[in-house]
Amino acid sequence: MTIERIRSYLFGEWCGDKEGQTLVNPATEEVLARADGSEQDLAGALTFAREHGGSALRALTFEERADMLGKMSAALHAAREPLIDSAVANGGCTRGDAKFDVDGAISVLAAYAELGKTLGKKKILADGEGIQLGRSPRFWGQHVYLPRRGVAVLINAFNFPAWGFAEKAACALLAGMPVMTKPATATALTAWKTTEVLINANVMPKGALSFIGGSASRVTEALDSQDVLAFTGSADTAMKLRSHPNVIERSVRVNIEADSLNASVLGPDVAFDADSMQLFLRDVVRDMTQKTGQKCTAVRRIFVPQSTLKDVEGEIAARLQAIKIGNPALKDVNMGPVATASQLADVKSGIAKLREEAELISGEPGARPQTVGVDGDKGYFHSPVLLRARDGMSAKAIHTHEVFGPCATVIPYSGDAEEASAMVRKGGGGLVASVYSDDREFTEAMVLGIASHHGRLYLGSGKVLEHATGPGLVLASCVHGGPGRAGGGEELGGLRGVTHFMQRTAIQGSRPSVENISDTKPVS
Amino acid sequence: MTIERIRSYLFGEWCGDKEGQTLVNPATEEVLARADGSEQDLAGALTFAREHGGSALRALTFEERADMLGKMSAALHAAREPLIDSAVANGGCTRGDAKFDVDGAISVLAAYAELGKTLGKKKILADGEGIQLGRSPRFWGQHVYLPRRGVAVLINAFNFPAWGFAEKAACALLAGMPVMTKPATATALTAWKTTEVLINANVMPKGALSFIGGSASRVTEALDSQDVLAFTGSADTAMKLRSHPNVIERSVRVNIEADSLNASVLGPDVAFDADSMQLFLRDVVRDMTQKTGQKCTAVRRIFVPQSTLKDVEGEIAARLQAIKIGNPALKDVNMGPVATASQLADVKSGIAKLREEAELISGEPGARPQTVGVDGDKGYFHSPVLLRARDGMSAKAIHTHEVFGPCATVIPYSGDAEEASAMVRKGGGGLVASVYSDDREFTEAMVLGIASHHGRLYLGSGKVLEHATGPGLVLASCVHGGPGRAGGGEELGGLRGVTHFMQRTAIQGSRPSVENISDTKPVS
Repeated sequence: MTIERIRSYLFGEWCGDKEGQTLVNPATEEVLARADGSEQDLAGALTFAREHGGSALRALTFEERADMLGKMSAALHAAREPLIDSAVANGGCTRGDAKFDVDGAISVLAAYAELGKTLGKKKILADGEGIQLGRSPRFWGQHVYLPRRGVAVLINAFNFPAWGFAEKAACALLAGMPVMTKPATATALTAWKTTEVLINANVMPKGALSFIGGSASRVTEALDSQDVLAFTGSADTAMKLRSHPNVIERSVRVNIEADSLNASVLGPDVAFDADSMQLFLRDVVRDMTQKTGQKCTAVRRIFVPQSTLKDVEGEIAARLQAIKIGNPALKDVNMGPVATASQLADVKSGIAKLREEAELISGEPGARPQTVGVDGDKGYFHSPVLLRARDGMSAKAIHTHEVFGPCATVIPYSGDAEEASAMVRKGGGGLVASVYSDDREFTEAMVLGIASHHGRLYLGSGKVLEHATGPGLVLASCVHGGPGRAGGGEELGGLRGVTHFMQRTAIQGSRPSVENISDTKPVS
Repeated sequence: MTIERIRSYLFGEWCGDKEGQTLVNPATEEVLARADGSEQDLAGALTFAREHGGSALRALTFEERADMLGKMSAALHAAREPLIDSAVANGGCTRGDAKFDVDGAISVLAAYAELGKTLGKKKILADGEGIQLGRSPRFWGQHVYLPRRGVAVLINAFNFPAWGFAEKAACALLAGMPVMTKPATATALTAWKTTEVLINANVMPKGALSFIGGSASRVTEALDSQDVLAFTGSADTAMKLRSHPNVIERSVRVNIEADSLNASVLGPDVAFDADSMQLFLRDVVRDMTQKTGQKCTAVRRIFVPQSTLKDVEGEIAARLQAIKIGNPALKDVNMGPVATASQLADVKSGIAKLREEAELISGEPGARPQTVGVDGDKGYFHSPVLLRARDGMSAKAIHTHEVFGPCATVIPYSGDAEEASAMVRKGGGGLVASVYSDDREFTEAMVLGIASHHGRLYLGSGKVLEHATGPGLVLASCVHGGPGRAGGGEELGGLRGVTHFMQRTAIQGSRPSVENISDTKPVS
């Protein structure tokens, strides 16, 4: 197999001939590719993107930008199989995991293409209704959104090289901002192939898409006040980006999605044979093992009432033990390795940390599990691990330390919604929490108790058994992000996600002139 | 006259017996009051506010919170005269300036009381329409807003001790968050009296309002992830707050309103005798002299086409020269001093900096002007100063250094909207820009050219001569804030300003359960 060379796409061309970091298959440790090791002129590339990409995109109407997104989605769909292969090889993904990423990218672009069409032949987005500003309706106000005149710098996590790029880029491009994207190097092969497909499709104006195939450590110092920095990854890196003097000084808009100790709360009303119990078990086990637990939305804390604790623990453990671990290129493997050696080390040390406050229910913490289709002790494998908190109320690490792998902790509670809410909030802010109950009062009390700490709440019940998508799935129509520990950012949610790349402006003036502008036709 | 003692209101009681900083009358330098010099337990006070104020406010419906705001407004209205007197004495305000602040506070509370009534007997605010999430309408989504479970810490600037507090507090309290407010010490007398009136009115639950009458330098280290920090003031202090490790680590939501080089652009179509010229001249002169130019929305850069440059400069200069400067307690005085000795020093050095790139048209930079009703050389007075940029395109300081006083710079331009836009954007982001023109194409080109850099655009034309409120006036119904140099924050704008103190959450579940929750009745 040839070793591929990941290059950067900057100044409207492929560049970067110096060999950089090595990318491997995390199941076999086979070398797959080498990243761009060049010292790129990122400040210059940003200026190029602002000048060429920005003005070209602003010259398009929403409808035209939507058309572009539709073509991008179609181009990725045509290259779906090689992209899936790449995600399997470089991401440690089963084919199901890989589809979750690649199809996610295709569908989020399609969703924003659909949404963009509804905005029509305009370049200005009205926000709310017009407002009479004085005693007479002559002096009139209207809030509008226009694209920011900068670059959307999108720094993505290793777990979703295709979708992670596409969900941010769809919003930024529809808003009218050019994109510069930087994937996590370890899994950059799929991100690079995605970019290559999109560039070859020739559907975007020059400068609308730039790709950093190597280090982006110097991009923060080159950001300007109209740029947007959107980052998904660890809280540590998020802090470094957000506290960079240049970012602070220029009030660069920063959108962060970081750690999240996502909670799943099983209601006290749910009997072991209830439909909502089936949904709960299915969601929990899927979340723990899909993408080897490396989803920012995966459940980390499972709140179970004392009444069903024993049965629930037993059933989750049994299902986890049935998971076949190994080379995800093989059809019958259910779970692949984590993405890198350092991720594996983090998973091991993280579980050890949690075990100071928890008992082991199932799994082999720190050990190499039995694997299929892998030579010797190659690959970064870990078994799914289920823990039980000794005391959820006094626990610290369980509520604050995210193990980014196939591990979750059961936290027993009395069945009281107030008690569960107080413990869920100890997570300090998360992306999503799920509540499984058929009791309306319990569900309402949980919503009032924990909504302040979450960007999304998923209410599982018997009524949605066949329809619910699981708390782990991020939909284009619903916001994705969370306060506090989760970074305080917000993405997607239909138009909401688009406006993060725009400036909201109140226009005040005579009613006809304000209405004329907020309904602006495609003038350049 | 007795020297007043400003105390803090924390833990639901007045406290702080140690004498702190001295507050003076900036026209006479007479000592008026002493601030709280105690080292207050702000971390403890925040916890008290979160626990008592937060839960009490969350237990109220929007309608009940609105009723509270209405009573707050009425209480301030009943104390209007002593508050105005205080603003005149401590703020260097003419009676007109003082009313601008005090009546602004009364009216913004009343405006949010009105708005809150329309939200009804609910505690959850729906955001947008419900969304079908799957193929069947059974699985349903709805975005909602709930109050953040923290404290809104409001740090205000010296120029609007009453309104600056009220506009932030109205939004936070309607959202359901308790408020801890810290005025700029130099003009804290009016802020303290405002708080006293509100506490004595006994219309807020315990813990809903706290007041720091001394130093708040240690409040940042005590903030938690659900708190909101809203700051109006200098870019330097804004940077310090925003880069504080605790603020960064906890993703504390920060809303900043900082420096702004507000622009006013006169269109090339406006003849000297046009109505729009009258509006322009009136607005510019009012902005330069109202509150002695100490308004964050005051015009700092005046773009004038070459065609009318001479006439416009002459007329503005003539009007400025007619301004009577002196003790603002006197009826015939049009403009008082700046607020402090250090502000005066900053104004002088700032004008000197601008003069490196500009000629003097009118005023006496750095000199003490003729004053009425003041002994000798007492007070922090400066004459209105009008400058003319030598070359707006190459100028640096004129676009980046805000002189917070009665000074503005005329920047000649060709009459081309693209050229004017490019120069306006050199301000790096501002709160408001105004465009005066009766030419629809020119106005539209300016909007498309500069909206990205502003939170508000004010379009002056002959049609609104008798109706327009001036670019300097901030209305509760329109957003106030701006990107980049202006801090990247946003306040007011009706409900928009309320949601900054809430968490947006996507609720997903069965359609009846989601609809039931987003229409939640007043349960506690």
